[in-house]
This record gives sequence, C-alpha cells and structure tokens, in this order.
Amino acid sequence: MIVGILGGGQLARMLALAGHPLGLKFITLEPAKDACSAAVAEQLLGAYDDESKLSELADKADVVTFEFENVPADSVTLLSSKIPCYPPANALAITQDRLNEKKIFNQLNIPTAPYRAVDTLDDLKQAMEKLGTAAILKTRREGYDGKGQARLESAADITTAWQTIAGKPAIVEGLVPFDREFSIIAVRSRTGETACYPLTENSHKRGILHSSLVRTDDPLQALAEQYINKLLNEMSYVGVLALELFQVGDQLFANEFAPRVHNSGHWTQDGAVCCQFENHLRAVCGLPLGSTRPLGHIAMLNLIGELPNINPILSLPDAHLHLYDKTARSGRKIGHINLCCKDKQQLEQQLNALQSLL
Amino acid sequence: MIVGILGGGQLARMLALAGHPLGLKFITLEPAKDACSAAVAEQLLGAYDDESKLSELADKADVVTFEFENVPADSVTLLSSKIPCYPPANALAITQDRLNEKKIFNQLNIPTAPYRAVDTLDDLKQAMEKLGTAAILKTRREGYDGKGQARLESAADITTAWQTIAGKPAIVEGLVPFDREFSIIAVRSRTGETACYPLTENSHKRGILHSSLVRTDDPLQALAEQYINKLLNEMSYVGVLALELFQVGDQLFANEFAPRVHNSGHWTQDGAVCCQFENHLRAVCGLPLGSTRPLGHIAMLNLIGELPNINPILSLPDAHLHLYDKTARSGRKIGHINLCCKDKQQLEQQLNALQSLL
Repeated sequence: MIVGILGGGQLARMLALAGHPLGLKFITLEPAKDACSAAVAEQLLGAYDDESKLSELADKADVVTFEFENVPADSVTLLSSKIPCYPPANALAITQDRLNEKKIFNQLNIPTAPYRAVDTLDDLKQAMEKLGTAAILKTRREGYDGKGQARLESAADITTAWQTIAGKPAIVEGLVPFDREFSIIAVRSRTGETACYPLTENSHKRGILHSSLVRTDDPLQALAEQYINKLLNEMSYVGVLALELFQVGDQLFANEFAPRVHNSGHWTQDGAVCCQFENHLRAVCGLPLGSTRPLGHIAMLNLIGELPNINPILSLPDAHLHLYDKTARSGRKIGHINLCCKDKQQLEQQLNALQSLL
Repeated sequence: MIVGILGGGQLARMLALAGHPLGLKFITLEPAKDACSAAVAEQLLGAYDDESKLSELADKADVVTFEFENVPADSVTLLSSKIPCYPPANALAITQDRLNEKKIFNQLNIPTAPYRAVDTLDDLKQAMEKLGTAAILKTRREGYDGKGQARLESAADITTAWQTIAGKPAIVEGLVPFDREFSIIAVRSRTGETACYPLTENSHKRGILHSSLVRTDDPLQALAEQYINKLLNEMSYVGVLALELFQVGDQLFANEFAPRVHNSGHWTQDGAVCCQFENHLRAVCGLPLGSTRPLGHIAMLNLIGELPNINPILSLPDAHLHLYDKTARSGRKIGHINLCCKDKQQLEQQLNALQSLL
C-alpha cells in the first residue's frame, strides 16, 4: 500500500520510518527542495494547492494523510473526491479555525477557558472588559508554536496586541491559572476502535514545546480519555489526534487539538509498544490498532536551534536520539531525545544529566 | 555522516531505518534493481567487484560496512585503502573460510565440534573413519542458510554428499548431540568498548532460522560472553558480531560466526534498549555504544516463503511486524515478527497464537 502525505517535514519522515516495516511505501507532496522526509519517502516537489500535483498524488497513492493542519482545505476536498483521505476533512476544517474548535468543545461539554470572538479592535476592547483578566489573543487561523499570538496583561496592552496579530480575525481567551499543561494522544481506526496513550505533562519555552514527561496512572487519565473519545467519535475521526489540556485542580480545560501526530507524542517511539506514527498509519490504512501500553518511566526533550555534541547524549544508557536532518536555525526544532527508564530514579538521574548537556 | 553499505538487502534496509534517527545517511552498492533497501537508502547499481562503483562509493561515503560476509575480499581491500571500513577485512577473511574460522576458535580455546579439512573424496572417506559418527560436510566458502552443506549419517552417504557440494574444498564436522542451539550477539566500538546482548535460543527448519527465543539470565551467558569477547578482541573487531553456539550440558561449542548484524538478533529492534542495527552503526561511525538491556520476555519468528494475512498478526497486543519489501518466494525470508511481552505467560500465549497464524 502506498501512503501519500501532504507535507514532507519531520512528521512525514517519522511516519515513513515507522511505516516501512509494515510494508508501506510513501510519497509526499512538499514544496521545499531540502525536505527532511526525502531520504525515506518519494517526493512530489510542488505546492500544497498545485492541482496537477494533487492529482498525481491521488493517482500514485492508495490513501492520503497530512502532517500538519494548515493544508488548504480545498486540497483535501479535491483529494477526498479521488481517494480515501484521513483524518477527515471536517476535522481539518474545525481545527483550522480556533473559533470552531472552541465551539465543538463547548458543544461536547468539554470545559475551556472563557473566550470571545474578535473581529475588530472594538471587539477586543469589549472582550477584555467582559473577561476581566489577563488574556491571550490568537488569530483564528494559521497559528502554531506560539505564532499569531499576543498576551495581554491588562487593557493597556490592547493596541499592541492587535498590531501583533495584524488585525486578523481572532479569539481572545482569559488566561487559566493552570497547575500543569497536559496533552493526551489517541487514535481511532476506520472501524471506530479507539486507544489512548497515557497523559503527558508538557512544558513550553517561548511558545515551543520544550519537554514532555509521561504521567502513567495519573488520576486525570480517565477524564482526559472521556474528552478525547467524545471528539474522536463526534468527528468520525480516523488517525491520531492530540488534545492539549490545562489542569486546574481536578479539572481539565481543553486548549486545542491537532488532527495529526504530535510533538508531545514523540516519546511513544521508544516508550510505548506501538508508537503514534505506526498507530496513525495503522488507522489510516485500515489495519488493526496497536497497543498504547507504556514501557517504563519516560520523558522527551526537544532539540531546538543548534545541535549539541551528540556523544555524551548517546552515552546515557536510556537515551534515544531522533534527528530530523534539518539545518540548525534559532527556534527551529531539529530533533528530540526520548528517555525510557526502568524506574523513576533512573529517569530523574538521566534527565538531569541530559538537561545539563543541552 | 554518510555510511556506505556493500549489499542492499533487508539487513541494509534495517540498518538504514535504525540509522536515520541518528542523522546518518546511507548509500548502498548492490547489483539487484529491486533492492529492498532502495526506499530508505541511495543505491549505486553495480556488482560488488566493479572497481569504478567501489571508487564512487568510497568518494561518496565517510565510512563503509557490509551486510553480508561473502563480499569479495579484494573489494574490501580496495575500499579499506581509501576510507575507514568496518568490520575489519581480517574478520571477513576468516569467516569466508570455514577452516580458518575453526582454527581461530581452537587458537582461542573456544571448543568446537571435531572436524577435518576435506579437499578430495579420499580426504572425506578418511575423515569419516576418524570422526566415527554422523557428520556434516560444508564447503569452506560461500555457504549460508544451509546451502553448500550435506549431511552424512554413515559412510554410505559419502559419494552423494561429495556430489551435493560439487567437490569443492570443504570441512567435515562430527555432529554434536546438542541440547539447544544458541547465538550471542555482541558489539565492539572503535575504542575497544564491548557490549553483549542476552543469549538467544534458535530453532532452524531446513537449514533456515525459524525462530529465536531470548534467554535472559541464562547460566551460560557468562561463558558465551567470554568466548565472543575473545573473538572481538583477537580480531580488533569493530561492529556487531554474531556467534552461533551449540549447548551440550554445561558446555558451549562454537559453530560459526557472522561479521555483521544477524537474523538471530532481529528481536533487539523491539526487545532491547538499543538494537543491533543501531549499535552496529554506532560502532562503525565511532559513536558510543548503546545499552543492550533487554525489555521483557521476547521471541522472534521469521516469515519465510509467503506472506500471511497481516491483520490477525497486528491484532496481537505485543507483536511487531517487520517486512522487507521482498517478493514472496519459497524458502525466502520476507520478514519477521518480534514479540516483546511483560511476562512469560503473555509471551507463551501470544507465541502460540502467532504460530497458529503462520
């Protein structure tokens, strides 16, 4: 079976690395000449909205998926008319607009931070009054890794924030005084079977995921699973879905979801029986899902910006290096390291050692 | 760093799959147009003794290794004069001749079955008299997976056996009444560091490895490690080495070694912290070795000949499928399945279920 992927970045690369052992082959549509998936997947060089390339992809592939959620909706509609395309276009449409995303959470009784839609500077002023708290302004479309966002501590920040997002349609959210940031990764098959990985506690730096710590047996696991299963079933979803959550006491507030394999699930490559990449492919290709059972005490650290000396990292007994074949550049994710240890003490020791190396 | 590989079969494919996450790139020299490593490694299409292709490989790669031991010795000598080439040429030279292989075992006080060199039919007759037992006749060169071998139950089989191997230079070995067949996989770095995986108990069918069962904490582990470490150090070896052993009571007899990643080590892909493929690359590229710690209760089954329905296999919770992208053909290895379970009972149950599917 040949899997087409819109996008040829590190997620496509890791999908292909996980999928070759299943006997799958890969073809990407990607405009960058130095795509980091190119060593492990055939590449159609072209824009995501190039109709002739999209047709070629549909002709060559048996099923299509995507590695990021900002693929033009028209491209997915075109592909869906020709071959099976998962996750479904409706999930993309929802996640491409933060307002729709909040609405589906509310509709499914999944709590979120208070928010208001903002189309004008005046909307923003009124919203800030209603929220009565520090807030974050986010463009409705095309934001990721902290881009297209501005934080407002008070009404004094309104003009600057509005300029930061260039006056695009937006939502403004009251800041939740959260205890921890979590995400849960789940997968749903074509036949409606679902499976969830354990909760992951995430820490961000400058809007970019910095590290994840796997929280096996967290008391909030059942609640998180309930929320993500509602989403999966409501959207008749197929593939891996990531849901970001804020914990406040014994409550969880949904922040956003990503209809794809997710950075906070990279630990599954070495820390779960079947990783998120393989499970996404199993779902998309109509195969049975794999086990999400975690293997030990696990953490993931991103490599951002420059590549450190890899030798001391490889000398840590339970470290697994994953490089993306990307040129180092400030703020760019170029790889990650998974630590999978047999006990908590080993994890703490090696995590400390690793942090001192980065 | 670019790794050149002589050979583009499944071992090259799995080396490349394990090496991309380390940031390595791969180029193979392989005469087959449908090489199964082609989806994950650049390929120079050419014979292993094509001097211009060998020079091109040396120019493009930073280090060279090989995926099988019957590469022409002259090719390795040529490559070694140009770039680092591991495992070293002397290890290849020894393993390419079963007589030399037996001699190094004897020289290092590693027990073997009784054997005699056989160059003529008369040699074979005399050897059978001396051995006084059932025996196996093996060509000194180019045998693998049971090819170039003939079994002799008694003197009556001498002529047929001699014809089977076409009268090539050979050795004849007395059959050891072994309890079990083992192998041990070890790795040695450029700096002389070594690491061993747990013993694997192997079963063969028609001369081809059928399945492996990992024997963590076997009382013979220390003896096997002593033997393989002697070999590694004697040959100033770099890379993964596999040593096949027969167990008779509390003794181990060396059968043969393979200077490469080995089928009986495929379980390490899912059952060890760092798999044999990654460890071979770490050694060859001058990186620190990875941990050989096993993860649970583990077995490996080969897929030979035809591809079964993969869905029920993928439904087993702890099964990992590894297909080689090879056309099915009688007696051909086309993939394998690793089972890695958290307890012995789970392994037994799933192994039974798996065997009923194959």
